[in-house]
Amino acid sequence: MQYAGPHQQDKAAYGVPYTLDPWFVTGLAEGEGCFCVSFSVRPKLRCGLEVRPSFSLSLNERDRPLLEDLQAFFGCGWIRESRSDRTFKYESRATSELVAHVVPHFEAYPLRGYKARSFDGFARVCRMIEQGDHLERAGLAQIVDIAYESSLGKRRHNQADLLRALGEVKG
Amino acid sequence: MQYAGPHQQDKAAYGVPYTLDPWFVTGLAEGEGCFCVSFSVRPKLRCGLEVRPSFSLSLNERDRPLLEDLQAFFGCGWIRESRSDRTFKYESRATSELVAHVVPHFEAYPLRGYKARSFDGFARVCRMIEQGDHLERAGLAQIVDIAYESSLGKRRHNQADLLRALGEVKG
Repeated sequence: MQYAGPHQQDKAAYGVPYTLDPWFVTGLAEGEGCFCVSFSVRPKLRCGLEVRPSFSLSLNERDRPLLEDLQAFFGCGWIRESRSDRTFKYESRATSELVAHVVPHFEAYPLRGYKARSFDGFARVCRMIEQGDHLERAGLAQIVDIAYESSLGKRRHNQADLLRALGEVKG
Repeated sequence: MQYAGPHQQDKAAYGVPYTLDPWFVTGLAEGEGCFCVSFSVRPKLRCGLEVRPSFSLSLNERDRPLLEDLQAFFGCGWIRESRSDRTFKYESRATSELVAHVVPHFEAYPLRGYKARSFDGFARVCRMIEQGDHLERAGLAQIVDIAYESSLGKRRHNQADLLRALGEVKG
């Protein structure tokens, strides 16, 4: 599969020229990137659980321009400050943008280390959410399994609690 | 300047196929690499100071194979374990190898963030050592200046102490 990066019209919206090499982006993410799937217990939702995937990358405040280049490269996401540790974080959370821009990039320019395993699970979860699998209990239970198998970030709940929340709410 | 990576014969010595993209290497180093120049007070040396440049990159123990790819890519350096924090470190310390392999790579595929400043100073120091500037007091004092201006790693001594050591030993 060949993937040439986000479309020019997306990039132009950020007003920053696209200059990062795609392999550079993968190398940077190998060290500093984070593929995460977080869950919240929400009894009012049909399945009782909310699921939110995100891709983020934090750098020291001095490297904020590099995060802006990254934002322009992906053509989505935003940057926010973390004052406690003097870092800035680039983050993309919208499933449609993750599926359109972030996931295809790492499929075309794959991670080389252990993080590639996390990405594989992350990509599966994003595509399952895009096609609505998280709206049914079986699909959501599978997403929970993938997230825990793939070490997709730290979570407030353990896996058993999430599956219990799924079982306690009527589908 | 075009630089196509270390020579094949060097890489073959490690028995690992060269597969990393050069921009991937730069991206990984942008986050995890460290350009360092360390000093030791050695009264028996002519100028009273020993200077040692090094390039290193540490990853979690799970990513040791990636460090081996990096070693093959540069065609120099070694890998050692740090048991205290369950990491492995790739490191290149020989000035001749730094000048032949590491410095040319980062000149051909430049760092994009703040670390590029450290690299510029590091490259100057490596080339000064290669041509013997560190064997004269004036050259060594200039190397100390560059190392501190470029934030080239943590050191046991402050800059004033090093310059004092230089002044106290007869050249």
